[in-house]
Amino acid sequence: MTWMNVDWGLNSELARQLYHETAASAPVIDFHNHLSAAEIAADQPFENLAKMWLDHDHYKWRMMRANGISEAYITGNAPDFDKFCAWATTLPYLLGSPLYQWTHLELARCFGIQTLLDGNTAKEIWDRTQTQLRDDPLTPRRWLARCRVKVLCTTDDPVDDLRGHQDCRNRISGFSVLPTFRPDRVFDLGNLNRWNRWVEQLASAAQVSINHLADLQLALDRRHQSFHDFGCRVSDHGLPVCWSLDADENRVEQIFQQARLGETVDSQQIQMFASWVLIFLARLDWQRGWTKQLHLGAKRNANSRLFADGGADRGGDVMGEWPQLDSLSRFLDQLELEQRLPKMIIYNNHPQDNYPLAVLLGAFSDPAIAGKLQWGPAWWHLDHADGIRTHLRIMANVGLLGRAVGMTTDSRSYLSMVRHEYYRRVLCDWISAAVHGGEIPDELSLLTNTVEQICYRNARDYFGWLLPD
Amino acid sequence: MTWMNVDWGLNSELARQLYHETAASAPVIDFHNHLSAAEIAADQPFENLAKMWLDHDHYKWRMMRANGISEAYITGNAPDFDKFCAWATTLPYLLGSPLYQWTHLELARCFGIQTLLDGNTAKEIWDRTQTQLRDDPLTPRRWLARCRVKVLCTTDDPVDDLRGHQDCRNRISGFSVLPTFRPDRVFDLGNLNRWNRWVEQLASAAQVSINHLADLQLALDRRHQSFHDFGCRVSDHGLPVCWSLDADENRVEQIFQQARLGETVDSQQIQMFASWVLIFLARLDWQRGWTKQLHLGAKRNANSRLFADGGADRGGDVMGEWPQLDSLSRFLDQLELEQRLPKMIIYNNHPQDNYPLAVLLGAFSDPAIAGKLQWGPAWWHLDHADGIRTHLRIMANVGLLGRAVGMTTDSRSYLSMVRHEYYRRVLCDWISAAVHGGEIPDELSLLTNTVEQICYRNARDYFGWLLPD
Amino acid sequence: MTWMNVDWGLNSELARQLYHETAASAPVIDFHNHLSAAEIAADQPFENLAKMWLDHDHYKWRMMRANGISEAYITGNAPDFDKFCAWATTLPYLLGSPLYQWTHLELARCFGIQTLLDGNTAKEIWDRTQTQLRDDPLTPRRWLARCRVKVLCTTDDPVDDLRGHQDCRNRISGFSVLPTFRPDRVFDLGNLNRWNRWVEQLASAAQVSINHLADLQLALDRRHQSFHDFGCRVSDHGLPVCWSLDADENRVEQIFQQARLGETVDSQQIQMFASWVLIFLARLDWQRGWTKQLHLGAKRNANSRLFADGGADRGGDVMGEWPQLDSLSRFLDQLELEQRLPKMIIYNNHPQDNYPLAVLLGAFSDPAIAGKLQWGPAWWHLDHADGIRTHLRIMANVGLLGRAVGMTTDSRSYLSMVRHEYYRRVLCDWISAAVHGGEIPDELSLLTNTVEQICYRNARDYFGWLLPD
Repeated sequence: MTWMNVDWGLNSELARQLYHETAASAPVIDFHNHLSAAEIAADQPFENLAKMWLDHDHYKWRMMRANGISEAYITGNAPDFDKFCAWATTLPYLLGSPLYQWTHLELARCFGIQTLLDGNTAKEIWDRTQTQLRDDPLTPRRWLARCRVKVLCTTDDPVDDLRGHQDCRNRISGFSVLPTFRPDRVFDLGNLNRWNRWVEQLASAAQVSINHLADLQLALDRRHQSFHDFGCRVSDHGLPVCWSLDADENRVEQIFQQARLGETVDSQQIQMFASWVLIFLARLDWQRGWTKQLHLGAKRNANSRLFADGGADRGGDVMGEWPQLDSLSRFLDQLELEQRLPKMIIYNNHPQDNYPLAVLLGAFSDPAIAGKLQWGPAWWHLDHADGIRTHLRIMANVGLLGRAVGMTTDSRSYLSMVRHEYYRRVLCDWISAAVHGGEIPDELSLLTNTVEQICYRNARDYFGWLLPD
Repeated sequence: MTWMNVDWGLNSELARQLYHETAASAPVIDFHNHLSAAEIAADQPFENLAKMWLDHDHYKWRMMRANGISEAYITGNAPDFDKFCAWATTLPYLLGSPLYQWTHLELARCFGIQTLLDGNTAKEIWDRTQTQLRDDPLTPRRWLARCRVKVLCTTDDPVDDLRGHQDCRNRISGFSVLPTFRPDRVFDLGNLNRWNRWVEQLASAAQVSINHLADLQLALDRRHQSFHDFGCRVSDHGLPVCWSLDADENRVEQIFQQARLGETVDSQQIQMFASWVLIFLARLDWQRGWTKQLHLGAKRNANSRLFADGGADRGGDVMGEWPQLDSLSRFLDQLELEQRLPKMIIYNNHPQDNYPLAVLLGAFSDPAIAGKLQWGPAWWHLDHADGIRTHLRIMANVGLLGRAVGMTTDSRSYLSMVRHEYYRRVLCDWISAAVHGGEIPDELSLLTNTVEQICYRNARDYFGWLLPD
Repeated sequence: MTWMNVDWGLNSELARQLYHETAASAPVIDFHNHLSAAEIAADQPFENLAKMWLDHDHYKWRMMRANGISEAYITGNAPDFDKFCAWATTLPYLLGSPLYQWTHLELARCFGIQTLLDGNTAKEIWDRTQTQLRDDPLTPRRWLARCRVKVLCTTDDPVDDLRGHQDCRNRISGFSVLPTFRPDRVFDLGNLNRWNRWVEQLASAAQVSINHLADLQLALDRRHQSFHDFGCRVSDHGLPVCWSLDADENRVEQIFQQARLGETVDSQQIQMFASWVLIFLARLDWQRGWTKQLHLGAKRNANSRLFADGGADRGGDVMGEWPQLDSLSRFLDQLELEQRLPKMIIYNNHPQDNYPLAVLLGAFSDPAIAGKLQWGPAWWHLDHADGIRTHLRIMANVGLLGRAVGMTTDSRSYLSMVRHEYYRRVLCDWISAAVHGGEIPDELSLLTNTVEQICYRNARDYFGWLLPD
């Protein structure tokens, strides 16, 4: 039996039944990723596997480096085929890695290739994929449609004019490409030149002069409304911690003024400013019925040399080990007290936060919406079969598994869309194993219903998009 | 095969043999729970499943809230049947949850019902249970006897007059209901009005005026002795951390005086006072041969709105993420140095403490008592099959599994007594799986003996009660 | 089927094939242990099992104590046979423990005994082993050769004259006994009398007067070179944390002078001094192409009474719960920035550091050496089948499993050499289970190659010793 065949990862009759009869055909809602709306609108054919795999994927880059590959073959100027070969020769050392699995799942689903990729098979596989891409060009939109995508949420700065999204609206039928409001740069007070430039861009995008804190808030509100008008229903933040210092308006105004003048603000001031703005933004999300996402706990650029050479998102990010939950707890509590807690999906990066985060979210609820606070699906360094199983298990142990909104790719790569298939196989296999162990009853309608909900229906209802059954 | 049948959770012939021939018939020592001695003495028949399940169970409450149920149907004034239905409709979303398993195990063992409970079956199951409760009334004592309970330790404030326990003594044969000394309120210096009222109650119960620290200690000692006279051999504390600041008597006396005058004491002072009193209480436990329990690391009332609406123990408690072990280590070390370390059972709430806690306890021992320091069985958010297996595995890896004192319910519900069955099934299945994997030898007498010890004999010998084999 | 037979722990046909055809015959590189070179050179026959098992093994000691055994039978003066019996009677309570498994694996591999050891079989097993040791004396070198050891790295203080290693060089063929440079005592500024005595020993060993920081560095450098000349290619540190405070030379010189004068230095000063010296030593390692090992996070002597009675390494050490990674991250970053980051193997003691440590190491790499930064194999309280599987799984999830340098014993006992077999069985079984679950493809050449690499070839190539295939 070849690897990555139709029954891959489905280790029982029940798992195969759940997957093939229910999970496989469910539509996809990818509520968080880093694809480009402009690129999807432009819909240029994919050129080759090196570009598809290696142009943006810092997961692969770091593993290639750790395997002793020179930078030229990773992010440098080596020819595409040579880069592809560098990846191919790294793969055998990645046995058991999600990267090994994803690579072969992508080869199988995108190109029908079930040969194992390594230094020996690289040439043959390159040639076969090149022939396919030439004879039957594949574009982003064709691929996304093949993956049954119904909604796809990109990640966008508030200053973005959303022209790419306008183009998607005009040109795409069959699925929706929607923006996500991600105002991370409003917290970038560690680099005031950059921050002030961004504030000016925001002022221009929102058509307002930003001289006071209130102006900043007005501008953010206007952009929030503009995003809303484009169908945006989701915001997102990438934060080391969900800051929640007590902040009073006068002090925050002072910090803002100081920062606008380019006078250095210290770390405590930045956190106070951020605490204030985070609450303000949460109220906007609540007011417009959005879902707020928090990606918590990454430590960025642990390797300064790598950062100096090539900037952020190069593969030098690691897990932060700092405490995470008290501050988040205060943030949720404050919003709950003022009855403006929006729907939220919260992702953690360090597995030590798995249990306490899942438990914390269970302390906040709302009769108006089942599963209001969601523990985000296994993220980044945890996004593999093992991390997904851990996520399912802990949700079952301390949460409402049946209300989970399922998977999102959080990826820069189109091919990553196969991770929905990957997640669904893990889900069906995990449920089946629990049935065989006796932890879940062998009641097919209940199991089928749960799989349908987690794969698609819960997300559809949670975000509130009008979509087919 | 119906779920929750006699072989539920026993996934091999060996597991079934160990469970049915050894574990199933072992008596039960429930050394920590929150049942009411007065209620057990009164022995009123159970009225209906809503009261049995939902009157005190904040585990269920939080899940119902998270599922979008209105408070009226949880802790409010809705009719019992409607509350029961609200729980029934929540259940399918709890697939894989211990609550799902316990609910069905309780239905099966208490009422012989093996139908899955959901919105559709709620009416039928309600009617069947109501008929049974009417035709053949079930009372706390009948139920506890059916569960083979031999000893049951409630949780009692030092100011309690133990009248309920006196009634139990007078009326019950076949098993013992014993008090547990839980002086949490002595640390409640954050609310001095409440604390001073409690100190007065303590003074009155101990028949001593409490004007100085020494009086407080005397009063605690007297109540400790009174509890001892009622057969109490166990104390308990629910603490964020086992405080162990260096504390000298003069400063603690000063803090005490300040608190008695109602003058605010700060957090540092409270910790110093608590450190002092904790050591004092440990010496009492040591002196009378008691076992001290510590429940460490819960963060209470994370949701202030929920607390403001309904008070403590409503479902808003979460896992504390703070460091736990250095302070505990100092506490144990101090008592060990003065050769007054009592037997202790220590429970953790955050799984990050699992390994270091189990390892720490192994550093303290006593030739007079095997397994003197016990890692408490999986507690609260960890009390499910998965948490129990993790507990067994880590004890096996770094401790003396064969000296473990087994399970306790820590519950407010009579029906929770089935969790001993639940634990024993997990235990037998876990041991059998380890045998099949080769990690434990397939030597039946050794396995049987270990199961007997963990289920009953270790606890019997550890606490020192005179009980049958 | 008897326990500890040839197929022990190999739960599938594939596991047995991988183990017997590939892993079993691979040579052993034990790159970190606490054996004595002088003893190996002297090669005295083993006297009895009590001496072999109980003379240095604080793992066993703590479990015997926890089981209520008196110190006389642990580290005291009881006769050897009685000590052996005390261990034998403790064993049944250790069901599932690695100590239970290792004991029986050692009995089987060293003496061909497959009887379970307990109080009843102790006499028979003692007699059989005594007969064997008398009739066919076993010595360290015979045993190490039987275990297929090719390289063995002991742990040595820089002041050691390495005479034992000289003797090994002169007398041993077939395998190499090499020193490891472990300068822990240079950080021992908490006890200045002891520290100053050690500095004098160092001065004498290096033939240099140590009056200034630069002299200390020169002396360390000379000893480093002398160790190098003896074939040493590995350094090691046992540290609570890899300190990395900003340290400037003037302040460190001042701290050094103060310490040399015996004037107390505070904890902050010790950390600054240590930070400086650690970086200095890392540069030496880099310069001579060595591999630096860090054993991080043990909290020593949690039980002061035990320490006062018998000193360090008695069984009173536990897991430190403090943050570990930010400081390590800064240390790595500084060396990377100055392009003098040596090869490193970093071991953690608390499982909460598993994931973030594995991820952190992936952020540092070098095109000159694949797998330059290695996550040390499961250590101390984590060194059991379960810990090894967790280590393999996390390496597979976030690292380069195929570049792992495999196992080392870190033991004071010759018999512990069977842990290489133990590790290899776990490895082959884990890979096979992953194949059966579908996470790894069923491609024998790939699997065989990975097993060969992890068991032997990676370590051989990584450390750079000239050894057979």
